[in-house]
Amino acid sequence: MDFCDKMREECGVIGMFDLGGGDVGKDLCYGLFALQHRGHMSCGIVTNDDYKLTRIKDNGHVNDVFDVRAIERLKGKIGLGHVRFTGGADLQENIQPITTRYCKGTISLAKNGFITNAETLRTALEDDGAIFQSKRDTEVIMHLIARARTTCPSAETSMLEVMESLEGAYSMILMSPKKLMAVRDPRGFRPLCMGRKGSAVVFASESCALDAMGAEFERDIEPGELVCVDMKNGVRSFRDFCGARTSLCMYEYVYFSRPDSILDGNEVYAFRERSGRLLARACPADADVVCGVPDGGTVYAQGYANETGIPLKASVMKNKFSSRNLFTHDAAGRENAIKLKYNVLRQTVAGKRIALVDDSLMRGDTARRIVTMLKNAGAKEVHLRIGSPRIIHDCPYGVQMPGEKDLLAAGGRTNEEMCAYLGCESIGFLPIESLRETELDGRFTYCTSCLDRKTRLKMK
Amino acid sequence: MDFCDKMREECGVIGMFDLGGGDVGKDLCYGLFALQHRGHMSCGIVTNDDYKLTRIKDNGHVNDVFDVRAIERLKGKIGLGHVRFTGGADLQENIQPITTRYCKGTISLAKNGFITNAETLRTALEDDGAIFQSKRDTEVIMHLIARARTTCPSAETSMLEVMESLEGAYSMILMSPKKLMAVRDPRGFRPLCMGRKGSAVVFASESCALDAMGAEFERDIEPGELVCVDMKNGVRSFRDFCGARTSLCMYEYVYFSRPDSILDGNEVYAFRERSGRLLARACPADADVVCGVPDGGTVYAQGYANETGIPLKASVMKNKFSSRNLFTHDAAGRENAIKLKYNVLRQTVAGKRIALVDDSLMRGDTARRIVTMLKNAGAKEVHLRIGSPRIIHDCPYGVQMPGEKDLLAAGGRTNEEMCAYLGCESIGFLPIESLRETELDGRFTYCTSCLDRKTRLKMK
Amino acid sequence: MDFCDKMREECGVIGMFDLGGGDVGKDLCYGLFALQHRGHMSCGIVTNDDYKLTRIKDNGHVNDVFDVRAIERLKGKIGLGHVRFTGGADLQENIQPITTRYCKGTISLAKNGFITNAETLRTALEDDGAIFQSKRDTEVIMHLIARARTTCPSAETSMLEVMESLEGAYSMILMSPKKLMAVRDPRGFRPLCMGRKGSAVVFASESCALDAMGAEFERDIEPGELVCVDMKNGVRSFRDFCGARTSLCMYEYVYFSRPDSILDGNEVYAFRERSGRLLARACPADADVVCGVPDGGTVYAQGYANETGIPLKASVMKNKFSSRNLFTHDAAGRENAIKLKYNVLRQTVAGKRIALVDDSLMRGDTARRIVTMLKNAGAKEVHLRIGSPRIIHDCPYGVQMPGEKDLLAAGGRTNEEMCAYLGCESIGFLPIESLRETELDGRFTYCTSCLDRKTRLKMK
Amino acid sequence: MDFCDKMREECGVIGMFDLGGGDVGKDLCYGLFALQHRGHMSCGIVTNDDYKLTRIKDNGHVNDVFDVRAIERLKGKIGLGHVRFTGGADLQENIQPITTRYCKGTISLAKNGFITNAETLRTALEDDGAIFQSKRDTEVIMHLIARARTTCPSAETSMLEVMESLEGAYSMILMSPKKLMAVRDPRGFRPLCMGRKGSAVVFASESCALDAMGAEFERDIEPGELVCVDMKNGVRSFRDFCGARTSLCMYEYVYFSRPDSILDGNEVYAFRERSGRLLARACPADADVVCGVPDGGTVYAQGYANETGIPLKASVMKNKFSSRNLFTHDAAGRENAIKLKYNVLRQTVAGKRIALVDDSLMRGDTARRIVTMLKNAGAKEVHLRIGSPRIIHDCPYGVQMPGEKDLLAAGGRTNEEMCAYLGCESIGFLPIESLRETELDGRFTYCTSCLDRKTRLKMK
Repeated sequence: MDFCDKMREECGVIGMFDLGGGDVGKDLCYGLFALQHRGHMSCGIVTNDDYKLTRIKDNGHVNDVFDVRAIERLKGKIGLGHVRFTGGADLQENIQPITTRYCKGTISLAKNGFITNAETLRTALEDDGAIFQSKRDTEVIMHLIARARTTCPSAETSMLEVMESLEGAYSMILMSPKKLMAVRDPRGFRPLCMGRKGSAVVFASESCALDAMGAEFERDIEPGELVCVDMKNGVRSFRDFCGARTSLCMYEYVYFSRPDSILDGNEVYAFRERSGRLLARACPADADVVCGVPDGGTVYAQGYANETGIPLKASVMKNKFSSRNLFTHDAAGRENAIKLKYNVLRQTVAGKRIALVDDSLMRGDTARRIVTMLKNAGAKEVHLRIGSPRIIHDCPYGVQMPGEKDLLAAGGRTNEEMCAYLGCESIGFLPIESLRETELDGRFTYCTSCLDRKTRLKMK
Repeated sequence: MDFCDKMREECGVIGMFDLGGGDVGKDLCYGLFALQHRGHMSCGIVTNDDYKLTRIKDNGHVNDVFDVRAIERLKGKIGLGHVRFTGGADLQENIQPITTRYCKGTISLAKNGFITNAETLRTALEDDGAIFQSKRDTEVIMHLIARARTTCPSAETSMLEVMESLEGAYSMILMSPKKLMAVRDPRGFRPLCMGRKGSAVVFASESCALDAMGAEFERDIEPGELVCVDMKNGVRSFRDFCGARTSLCMYEYVYFSRPDSILDGNEVYAFRERSGRLLARACPADADVVCGVPDGGTVYAQGYANETGIPLKASVMKNKFSSRNLFTHDAAGRENAIKLKYNVLRQTVAGKRIALVDDSLMRGDTARRIVTMLKNAGAKEVHLRIGSPRIIHDCPYGVQMPGEKDLLAAGGRTNEEMCAYLGCESIGFLPIESLRETELDGRFTYCTSCLDRKTRLKMK
Repeated sequence: MDFCDKMREECGVIGMFDLGGGDVGKDLCYGLFALQHRGHMSCGIVTNDDYKLTRIKDNGHVNDVFDVRAIERLKGKIGLGHVRFTGGADLQENIQPITTRYCKGTISLAKNGFITNAETLRTALEDDGAIFQSKRDTEVIMHLIARARTTCPSAETSMLEVMESLEGAYSMILMSPKKLMAVRDPRGFRPLCMGRKGSAVVFASESCALDAMGAEFERDIEPGELVCVDMKNGVRSFRDFCGARTSLCMYEYVYFSRPDSILDGNEVYAFRERSGRLLARACPADADVVCGVPDGGTVYAQGYANETGIPLKASVMKNKFSSRNLFTHDAAGRENAIKLKYNVLRQTVAGKRIALVDDSLMRGDTARRIVTMLKNAGAKEVHLRIGSPRIIHDCPYGVQMPGEKDLLAAGGRTNEEMCAYLGCESIGFLPIESLRETELDGRFTYCTSCLDRKTRLKMK
Repeated sequence: MDFCDKMREECGVIGMFDLGGGDVGKDLCYGLFALQHRGHMSCGIVTNDDYKLTRIKDNGHVNDVFDVRAIERLKGKIGLGHVRFTGGADLQENIQPITTRYCKGTISLAKNGFITNAETLRTALEDDGAIFQSKRDTEVIMHLIARARTTCPSAETSMLEVMESLEGAYSMILMSPKKLMAVRDPRGFRPLCMGRKGSAVVFASESCALDAMGAEFERDIEPGELVCVDMKNGVRSFRDFCGARTSLCMYEYVYFSRPDSILDGNEVYAFRERSGRLLARACPADADVVCGVPDGGTVYAQGYANETGIPLKASVMKNKFSSRNLFTHDAAGRENAIKLKYNVLRQTVAGKRIALVDDSLMRGDTARRIVTMLKNAGAKEVHLRIGSPRIIHDCPYGVQMPGEKDLLAAGGRTNEEMCAYLGCESIGFLPIESLRETELDGRFTYCTSCLDRKTRLKMK
């Protein structure tokens, strides 16, 4: 929906190499389907059947682009896939994976993240006579690999040379004629994990994809690691860029990833339930019922209710069907969109004091509308509780979100000002300090750029 | 999904007449969108702009069939709409509302329910020279109205004459050139309510549609009532068939209707939360966490947790995207379908005793698969709790469900046998007797045909 | 094209019954494809596989609606098909063949022509309680058959009873559960013929369809004849309505039918070539080259050149691709449409005196534009010659054409006035009297309503 | 159609620059529509509105890809377009014009022809680190231009530098941010002309496109010429590569181009009519009627009839509608395809001696089938006359055609052997020597590689 009041993640990636020689197309589809929440506008898969590539990609959901017949066409023991949250009017050739020919045959790439120095790299390449068919940073990476390959002895050494010049967030899968590679940037912004299914090696953005494929989770790809799979050498790991201090994106836990995924050792659901409990401790509310804003606030509300013992009841219902064609994309349409998406439970709400829990607060439009609906239905009080800290900055690593001037919690706004705008009795955010008590894996440090411009949050 | 392990409702209906003369197309779309859960395969709307009809109907969701431009085309102050759960290969002409010309112009009809004596009525009509373009019972009703109209003085008296011969469940909206009518069968199997939005009168299957339209709920249509709206006489009620003992369908509360709807005085959410509490009392479980099977079991699980104080935690996650093109429609595909739809939360589940709550139990395929997944993820015990009584009979009023031989709780199966099949430690159903304590409106009696072949359950 | 400057025929019909039991779907598609010129907006086929009907119909060309897979689905030894020249925004249920259930099962109908008393029949039926789902006269016929069948002993006797009340032009194919029937109205306005392919009986609007199917032409269906095919009795002919004076439509020869069809004994190509020769005798021209307006005028120009010995050269080229989405449908768009459709051969035309031959003259827009183009390219003189008489009246038998006020040759306009409007040096039409010398089959009389309001033209 | 028994041309190109600043989108569509015969599988247009590009391209006809709304989107005073005869399953990104970014912004390219040394150039580029997203030779050209541009002072000097290394046939339109360029290879294999419409300069493959756009023909682009248009310098011509001996493709006249086009001074229609006359002199036939095989043979037949005085009559009719989905693409389907496409005129043919004229003879499948049909319809004799010489070699300049072993006239086959295969009484080809009398423009020499491996045919 255009009126999204959430951050938007870039994409999800997946790759599979069956060393036993079986076709990987079906499992790639299933895995990609499990990553649909990371991007639902377009998707694609490329498989490699002894150098014969099959490429299927289009705008639409995984279920729209791939059906049983498409799956049958995806022959080959190596393959990779991608979902992304942009699409529509977009040219089909921008849909990933992208595939190019270079001196050693073809190379395909699926990437999640954002190269922060892509523009600089592109200009240098153009000045050296390179042509570009898109504005994608993926194409920059392709050029760099092709140029590196004229002097490097292998695809993996070329990729390592390219990593020298890339800055920013990237978790990538690459497929050369004979190899599948998984690469995670040295600071590990985006997740990437590895599993096994029989004789096959699998890479995916989130572990939930492994579950859907029936694969066993093996381990996370380390920040800075390159894993290369081929028939000759099996699985090899290159750690030239490992060991730097990490910046795992905190919002992968707060919102992007699926609750059932386990990223770098942390189950997303557990993080959120615990955040809800910590929120209850930091910002208690004198309420009759706890209610989550669906879907993002649901788990936080469970934690809040479990901690306080206040009954958890749905007060707001979300229509699960898409409504985006039904209204114009202006302010009036935005109102209709929210009205069509949400409704309140009148008898449950009437006369009650409600602790309304959401995952995050961006513009506040949805929250304001829901508070109004609750009040109109007779709620006595509404206490808004946000399961994450105040978002006050843009993301420098490519996550799309409203500009700082549109962020309700930015600009030094007080709680009173926000309550006045939202129409609620009180508001409370999870303190940044509480994030350190969420029990995320202590081996890593985490990026909280959008909260405090810092990228090295440590757990207690 | 073809592998649906739930009952399937027939459809949802909506109608609107703006006595002030405004266009009703946009509100009909919004209302129909709110009824999408009652049928997501095809939908249609017909509006009447001073006798000029605009008909838009097709396979697909409301959001697919109607966009901003379609809405603009739907001119006129009278209109009606329909969603249904069948579609696809189905011929477009079977999509409702259906419209026919008769001696007084055109008549359009949207119907929810099932005429039990339709075949008898159709044969009699055919023997009298009638032609049929479908197997729909709606076409039978159209013929009866047209024939009645040759002797009756008005559309509404014709409809009343037709009601004499109809048996079964029906909530209908009809539109003649100048009138909009809402009819509910004498036993009131299917819900139907009425609201106002400014100068407009609105009818809908569920009150959630009124909310989405921004209309005020006025009252339910009584079982046996015919309400007729026209410019000349405004709103008139005909109660010739009112007063019989009612048979409101219990599964409208258990599963079909949206939690935020209020049907015949009963908020569906409240019924389900209360059922969850009653279930907890009747079938307690020694569990560490309570978990609902999404989406149907979610509210029951809230009631169960609220009653027992056991923490409510998600143990099972449901992928909200459609996956139905991704697998074949055989047994192997069925397995894949469930695997793609559900996943467990491994860290939350490991080592725990789980009270797993669902709304109802049909074939048990989904429950069995989920229990297996929980056990594989390390759950110590799984105690299945069902928020409604054992379903052991077919529905004689047209609800589609597996045959009796496929119903796990039918055939005298013991709890032990069911547990053995499902792989869980214990199972418990809401006792039929507890349904009498769910505080549904005591003015009515309720149909529990699928539970005990009775149609007159009274509240305590 | 919307800017058609031609008459428009209603449709084409086809039917096939393989008494040997083979599937007829593929041959029906091939035959229907050969009739595409009779209607290119929508098409449909229904086959009957021991009472199991397969119905495929949609807007679009035969090649769009039917592909190899569709053909495979069309199982059954009986079937019928239809092409029509209306479609697009039209409701799919109006596409023929139409199928209804009646007291004896189902009946399907494909009709070419126009029932002139349909409205009267419909009103009587409505007053007797009948409902109509369309404005099609086919539905009126269906009602009459169903009602007749309640007292008549068979489908064919019912049809004969219905023929009593039908007026106008109709060539029809009907399929009951066990029978295929072909019916031609007593005056024979529209063509209908019969052929054999092995054990199969075939009916089609034109003989070119038999050729495409690989069937042997057997004979024309006589005006007023009903032919009934079934397994029990084979082929039977009912001639109750034969013997009236006929009114074969002259424009089937002038424009509607394909040149390679032989209708009621007359090859269409030969008629047109001969008309061109007669035109040359009646209206000679002092020209350097003869040129036909493609495509309709091509054959007439051949006759004109063959008679006079003047070289035949293309002066005007027609782009064979459809251009109808490329311009707006207003006057400016109409100009663009003609400009995109036609172009002149500059070197061939320059300095020449041209005899420009077309089949008929309606509004004259196209002729005027082409004359202008020829003059701009340097043509010295343009002498317009029309291969048929002046069209001055509407067709009372349902052929769509511009109203009388838009017919250039109507309203008593002189040749000089027409030349002034068209920009040509002279104009000449085939005299009506010459039609009597075209050597059409003398057993019949022909309808020339649009030329002189008469319906009984005799050959010499 | 897959069963094409003709040579296939590569494509058609068009470009327009309105120095007065008006939008060129609509005229480009109209011009492209007129070039549809040069490629009907996919098409595209790119316009440039002060550096903002609009790109619309897809599989399908011009009329399918561009409608009135698409035309409105094509804003800008510079633009170019392309039609090609490949498409379908093909990836959308292969559809021209292709657009890439390079050091000076973007560059778009539409090309007709075939670079014979593309593979060599590509390998050298890859070894230097270049990546390729397709197998198109257009992408090779793009790389060369981008690299040249790092040292050349302008787009046009870069293009001239690139021309040094290109071999083969190419007529191209290029659009840089501020310039439109038209380039024709030094031997002029493919046509390219230039026109004016008010303040706009137009380039197109054939002059018929200028007519459709309402532009005035100005002159042909010379072999080896580069014409560059920009706001600052207007129209400039670069003749660095002009003056070599030319190799205009003879089959542009025989078959590829539209009859109404004037290429390098020669009207295509006049060439073909004259070829028909020369054929009649070289290979007379004792026949009752002359008949052309539609559509290619039609004009040759006119010449043949005009020269001999034998009446021209259609004996074979071609169904103008596409039938390609209606049959399988194997041998049986091929038979069906021809049967559906062609039919004979039985009464015209019966008992006649026919001179059957076609433009060229490749495999001979279609000719054989038509001869059989004529004989089955009662033709007494069939004398096949081919309006061009025997085709006996592949085209080294990229025209797609059957292999030499499938060419009926190759391999030293005698006329008797061909007649035996085709079933006709006699066969005659236009002698190569006669080509020299077709009065094509004597300033040029012509390529007859497919006839005699020579590329320098002179006119008498």
